[in-house]
Amino acid sequence: MHFLSQAVLTDYRLGTNEPLFRVCRAPHGYPLYLMGFVQRTKTSGEIRLEHAGQEVSLNGWAHRVRDLGGVLFVDLRDRTGFVQLVLDPNRFPNRNEIRSETCLAVTGEVRERAESTKNPKMPTGDIEIIVTGYTVLGPAKPLPFPLSDEDQMATVNEELRVKHRYLDLRRPSMFRRLSIRAAVIRNMRRYFDDIGFLEVETPIITKSTPEGARDYLVAYRLDPGHWYALPQSPQQYKQMLMVAGVERYYQFAKCFRDEASRADRQPEFTQVDLEMSFITQEDILGVAEGCTRTVVNQMIDEYGLDKEKVGTFERLTYDEAMHLYGCDKPDIRFALPLFDVTADLAETEFSIFKATIESGGFIRGARYPGGANLSRKEIGILEDFCKDLGAKGMATLIFGDEVKGSVAKFLKPEEIEAIKARSGAEQGDLLCFIAGDYTQTNNVLYRLRLEIGDRLKLRDPRILKFCWVLDFPLVEWDAQDGHWSAMHHPFTSPKEEDLVYLETDPGRIRADAYDMVCNGYECGGGSIRINRPDVQQRMFALLGIDDETQQERFGHLLEAFSYGSPPHGGIAWGYDRLIMLLTDTDNIREVMAFPKVGNGYDPLMDAPSTIDPQQWAELGLRLSK
Amino acid sequence: MHFLSQAVLTDYRLGTNEPLFRVCRAPHGYPLYLMGFVQRTKTSGEIRLEHAGQEVSLNGWAHRVRDLGGVLFVDLRDRTGFVQLVLDPNRFPNRNEIRSETCLAVTGEVRERAESTKNPKMPTGDIEIIVTGYTVLGPAKPLPFPLSDEDQMATVNEELRVKHRYLDLRRPSMFRRLSIRAAVIRNMRRYFDDIGFLEVETPIITKSTPEGARDYLVAYRLDPGHWYALPQSPQQYKQMLMVAGVERYYQFAKCFRDEASRADRQPEFTQVDLEMSFITQEDILGVAEGCTRTVVNQMIDEYGLDKEKVGTFERLTYDEAMHLYGCDKPDIRFALPLFDVTADLAETEFSIFKATIESGGFIRGARYPGGANLSRKEIGILEDFCKDLGAKGMATLIFGDEVKGSVAKFLKPEEIEAIKARSGAEQGDLLCFIAGDYTQTNNVLYRLRLEIGDRLKLRDPRILKFCWVLDFPLVEWDAQDGHWSAMHHPFTSPKEEDLVYLETDPGRIRADAYDMVCNGYECGGGSIRINRPDVQQRMFALLGIDDETQQERFGHLLEAFSYGSPPHGGIAWGYDRLIMLLTDTDNIREVMAFPKVGNGYDPLMDAPSTIDPQQWAELGLRLSK
Repeated sequence: MHFLSQAVLTDYRLGTNEPLFRVCRAPHGYPLYLMGFVQRTKTSGEIRLEHAGQEVSLNGWAHRVRDLGGVLFVDLRDRTGFVQLVLDPNRFPNRNEIRSETCLAVTGEVRERAESTKNPKMPTGDIEIIVTGYTVLGPAKPLPFPLSDEDQMATVNEELRVKHRYLDLRRPSMFRRLSIRAAVIRNMRRYFDDIGFLEVETPIITKSTPEGARDYLVAYRLDPGHWYALPQSPQQYKQMLMVAGVERYYQFAKCFRDEASRADRQPEFTQVDLEMSFITQEDILGVAEGCTRTVVNQMIDEYGLDKEKVGTFERLTYDEAMHLYGCDKPDIRFALPLFDVTADLAETEFSIFKATIESGGFIRGARYPGGANLSRKEIGILEDFCKDLGAKGMATLIFGDEVKGSVAKFLKPEEIEAIKARSGAEQGDLLCFIAGDYTQTNNVLYRLRLEIGDRLKLRDPRILKFCWVLDFPLVEWDAQDGHWSAMHHPFTSPKEEDLVYLETDPGRIRADAYDMVCNGYECGGGSIRINRPDVQQRMFALLGIDDETQQERFGHLLEAFSYGSPPHGGIAWGYDRLIMLLTDTDNIREVMAFPKVGNGYDPLMDAPSTIDPQQWAELGLRLSK
Repeated sequence: MHFLSQAVLTDYRLGTNEPLFRVCRAPHGYPLYLMGFVQRTKTSGEIRLEHAGQEVSLNGWAHRVRDLGGVLFVDLRDRTGFVQLVLDPNRFPNRNEIRSETCLAVTGEVRERAESTKNPKMPTGDIEIIVTGYTVLGPAKPLPFPLSDEDQMATVNEELRVKHRYLDLRRPSMFRRLSIRAAVIRNMRRYFDDIGFLEVETPIITKSTPEGARDYLVAYRLDPGHWYALPQSPQQYKQMLMVAGVERYYQFAKCFRDEASRADRQPEFTQVDLEMSFITQEDILGVAEGCTRTVVNQMIDEYGLDKEKVGTFERLTYDEAMHLYGCDKPDIRFALPLFDVTADLAETEFSIFKATIESGGFIRGARYPGGANLSRKEIGILEDFCKDLGAKGMATLIFGDEVKGSVAKFLKPEEIEAIKARSGAEQGDLLCFIAGDYTQTNNVLYRLRLEIGDRLKLRDPRILKFCWVLDFPLVEWDAQDGHWSAMHHPFTSPKEEDLVYLETDPGRIRADAYDMVCNGYECGGGSIRINRPDVQQRMFALLGIDDETQQERFGHLLEAFSYGSPPHGGIAWGYDRLIMLLTDTDNIREVMAFPKVGNGYDPLMDAPSTIDPQQWAELGLRLSK
C-alpha cells in the first residue's frame, strides 16, 4: 500500500488550515487517485545557497534513496537536476514508501549543509531540503534495471532498455541527448528561416521514389491490390516545389527505408532536406556548410561541449578521396594518406607484385608511423585484419635500424628508396602494402588507415572535421544486373561538359553531386538536378528504364519539367550522426527517443504485430502461403 | 525550338567580352542544356522608383505576356511579386519564345514609367525593366489551365489543379497560403521553445492507437502477416515521455486516419501536439490559448490580415454548449442562444407538443431576428432545411403586427407570453420550434441557428472567436455495439469526484477533457490523463476491454504507469483549420502543398497504385479473392 492515508496527510499540513493536497478517498478506503499535488515553486536543479531559509515546493523522482540510521536521504531528480532531501523518521513514519523512482511532490525548507557534507560536484551540493511534507504522486514497483548509476548503463541489455524506454529516458545522460537533439533542430530551423527558406510539409503516404532501398508499403483498403509507399525521401516533391516557384524549401523530413535486416539501420529517420532554385552548386554548399558550422558551434557554446569549434569545410573531389583515403567518406582528422607505388615497381622482379601490375592491378599501401616497433605477432594481427576485409595478404616494409619486412628481401634498394620517398616513410615506420585492383585495395586500405588512426589515437573525439567530397561519377556499372545504375539517384545532373558522353561513355561522366562527410561518416549528400524533360528521359534510358516505365513511374515529373522548370538543386543530411558525434556515442539508438531494435522490431509497443480477422477482411488480403 | 541559338546569345552580350550565360552546345546543334543563368541581383517584387537607372538581373516566370504592336510586355513573377518587362522587337526577334510560364533569367535597366502608364495597384507599378538580355531557363508548353487570373481559379476542376500542383502553387494566392502556414508553424514553435517545451520526434511506423478511426497498416516483409500501423496520434508515446520525465513535450505530429471514404478528410494531417506533467487542466488551457492567441495576432500583424485581434477565450461547459448552441463546437461570434420552452408548455393542450412532453421530450427553439418578414415560401424553405436534418416538422411563432405562425392558434395567450419571455423574442422576430428528444432537437437547432447566423451575416470572417468547451462526459453509450465508449479516448481521466461512479453510473461521470473551438469548428482537444494503472484498468474494463486484451494492446502503458507515473495531461490541435480561417478558405486542400482528393487518391503521383510481382512475393501476401 504505497498511498498516503488521509491521517498521515493531515500531519503534513504544517499546522495551517489550507489543505496542501487534494485527495480523493476512494471507496476502497485509501486515496486511490491522487490528482492533486504541490504546485512547484522551484525546480530541483536550480536551488543554491542563496535560497537557504526559503520554503520550496518541488516535483520529481526519487533518484537515489539512502537510509542512514532512520534518516532518509533522497536525491530528488527532475529534468533540471538533483537536490538532496532529508526526511526525519519521527515526522515521516511511512517514509519507506519512497523507493527508487517514486514520483513525488515535496515541500521543505532549504538549509545549508554542514561544511563536511557539502558536495562540490553537485550544483546544489551546498544545500539540502529539510522535508516538511510530501505526497506520492506515483508509486514505483521494483525497477527492471537500475537508473541511478550511469556507469551501469552499458551492462543492461539494450532490448530491455528500449522495452522500458520510459525508464531509460529518465537517465540524465539520455535526457541530455534528447535535449541536444531538440536544440540542434531548433537552431537549424532558425538558420533557414532567417535566410528566406520556406518550410513545406510533403506527404508521408505517397508513391515509391527510387532511392536504392525497398519501400515500406501501406495497404489501400478501398481497392485491394493497390498500395501507398512511405517515402525514402521527399526528392520528387521538393523538385516539384522548385517547379512551383518556392525557390527555397526546407523540411525536417521523415524518411523510411525497408532495410530492416541490416544492422544498426533504423526503418525511419529524419533528415534535413533542402532545395533551391536559380543557384549553382556553390550556393547549396554554402547554405549547408553555413548551417552546420553555425549550429555545431552554437551547440558547443550552449551546452559547454568539450569540442573544438568547426571551421571551414575542406574539399576533395571523389577521385582525390578515393586516391588519398580509399573511400568517399574520409576521416581527415589525421593525414596518413594512402600511397601508390605501382609506377615505382614497374620493373620489379618480386613475382606477386609483378603479376598484379601485369594484370593491370595496383600496389598501394598505408603508412603506420612508429609501426616498426610492432612485434611479429602484432603485424600478424594487422595482416589478419586485412585478410578479413578480402585481401589475399599484406606485404610489409619496416624502417627500423635496418629495412626489414616481408618484401624487403625481394625489392631492389632503389625500389625501396622510391617507395620510401613516395610514402613519406620515416625512421621507425611500418609500411603495409595491398596488391589488387583499385576497388580491392581501397576497400582494405581505407579501413586499415582508420585502424592505424585508432591505434595512434589520431581520431580525436573532440574534433569534428567536416569535408565536402565533390564531382561524383554520375553512374556506376552494376555487374550483377548488367546495366548502369545511378550513383546518387536518377535526378542528378551530369556536369554540362560531360553531357555529350551520356550515350557514348557514361562511366566517365561526372555529376554535379556532393557529399558532406564528417570524421569518416557520410552525413548527407545532394546534387544539382536535371531540370529538362529531354535530359531526364536520356538519363532514365541510360538506367535501363524504357519509355513506358518512365511514363508510368515518372510521367508527372517529366510533365512538370515541361512547364518552365527552373535550374535547381539541393541536399539532405542526417542530424542523427551529428548528434551522435556531439554526444560521443556510436549507437544511433542512443539519440532517438523511441528506436527500433534488430530487424525493425519495437519491443516497447510490440510492433509489428498480427492483426485481427476483420482487419484482414477489410484489407482484402491474405497470406500467400 | 525554344532554345537560344549561340548566335542570338552573342547579340545579348551587350558589347562586352564577358559571356553573360554559360551555354553548352549539345551535339544536336542547339544548346540543349542551359545550366548557367544570370545570377539575380534583385527579386521582382522589390524594385521601386529609387532603383531607376540601375541595371538589374532577375529570375522568374512570365506570368502574363502581351504583345502590343510588336513590343512584348511581360509581367515577370517570382515569389516576391511582379515586375513589368519591356522587350524591344528589333533587339529580340525571337521574343515569341517567351510564353506564359516560361522560366527566365533577365537583365535590364530599371526605368520610370510614363505617368499615364503607372499602376498604383502594383508595388512595382512606377517602373518597368527595359530588357537588355535574357535567357530561357525552362521553356513552357501550353498550360492545362490559366494561372494569370486568380478569379478563374474556382472554375478549374480541382483534381486537375492537384494533378498539376506544381503549376497551381505558382499562383500568388497559393504561395501566400504556404507562406502563412510556414509562419504559423514557426511562430508556434518559438512560443513553445521559449517556455521550456522539448520537441521530441515519435515514430511513424508503430502500433495501433485506438482513436476511433481505422489504422493504415504497413506490411512487414520479414514476417508476413505482421503489420505496423501508422499513428492516429502520438498519444501513447507522449504519455510515455511524461513517465520518462520530459515534463513538457511538443511536436508537430504527423497523424494518419483511414477515413478515405469521408468527404473532405485527408488521410494524413499534422497537429500541434503537447503534453505536460505536474500540471492541472488550467496550465494546459493557458499554454494552448496563449500560443494560439499570440500566434494569430502575430500573423495578423506580419501579414496585414484583415482580421480583428483575438482576445481571451470564452469558456463553456459541455452542458452549457449543448443547451445554448445545440452542439459542442458552437460558433459564438453571434449570440442567438437556443431556448427551451418545455417547462412553459407543461400544461399545453396543443397535441403535438403535449405528446412530445409526455414522452419525456423537449420543445426547443431558435430565434430568427427580423424573421417575421419572411414569406410563407421562405419559411417553408427553413422547415425543409430542418426536415432534411431529421426533424418531423418545424413549428413557428411570428411576432409581427399580430402574433401568427403555425402554432399561434393552438397556444394560450399566457403560453405565448411565457415563450416570448423565455426566448427573448422581440417585435419582428420569428421563432422556430423543434419537438423531440434532446439529441434530436440539438442536431436540428444547432444547424438552424448557424443558418440564421449566415442569413443575417452574423458570422463575420474578420472575427476569430475562440472558446473552450470543458467538462465533457467521460463515456457515451454505444447503442449499436451495446457498450460504453470513450468520448475522447480511453486515456482520459475522470474528474476525481466522479471516480466513484466508474462502475455504478458511468454516464454521469465528467472528464477532465476540453475542446478548443473557433467559429463553429473544433480545432482540437485534450484531457488530463489517467496516470494510475489501477484506474486505467478500470477504465478499460468499462469500455469492454477484457484483461487479456488490455495486456496485449496496452500492457506497455499499464507497466509504465507502475514506475512512478506523474500526473499529466495535454492537448492536440490542428492548424489546418486555423490557416483556413486566416486565409478565408473553406477547403483544407487549399492550405496543403500536396493534398489527396476523394478517397485518398493522389492524382499528381498516381498513388495508391499497383505493385509488381516481386514486391508481392517479398510481402508474402496475395489478394484474398
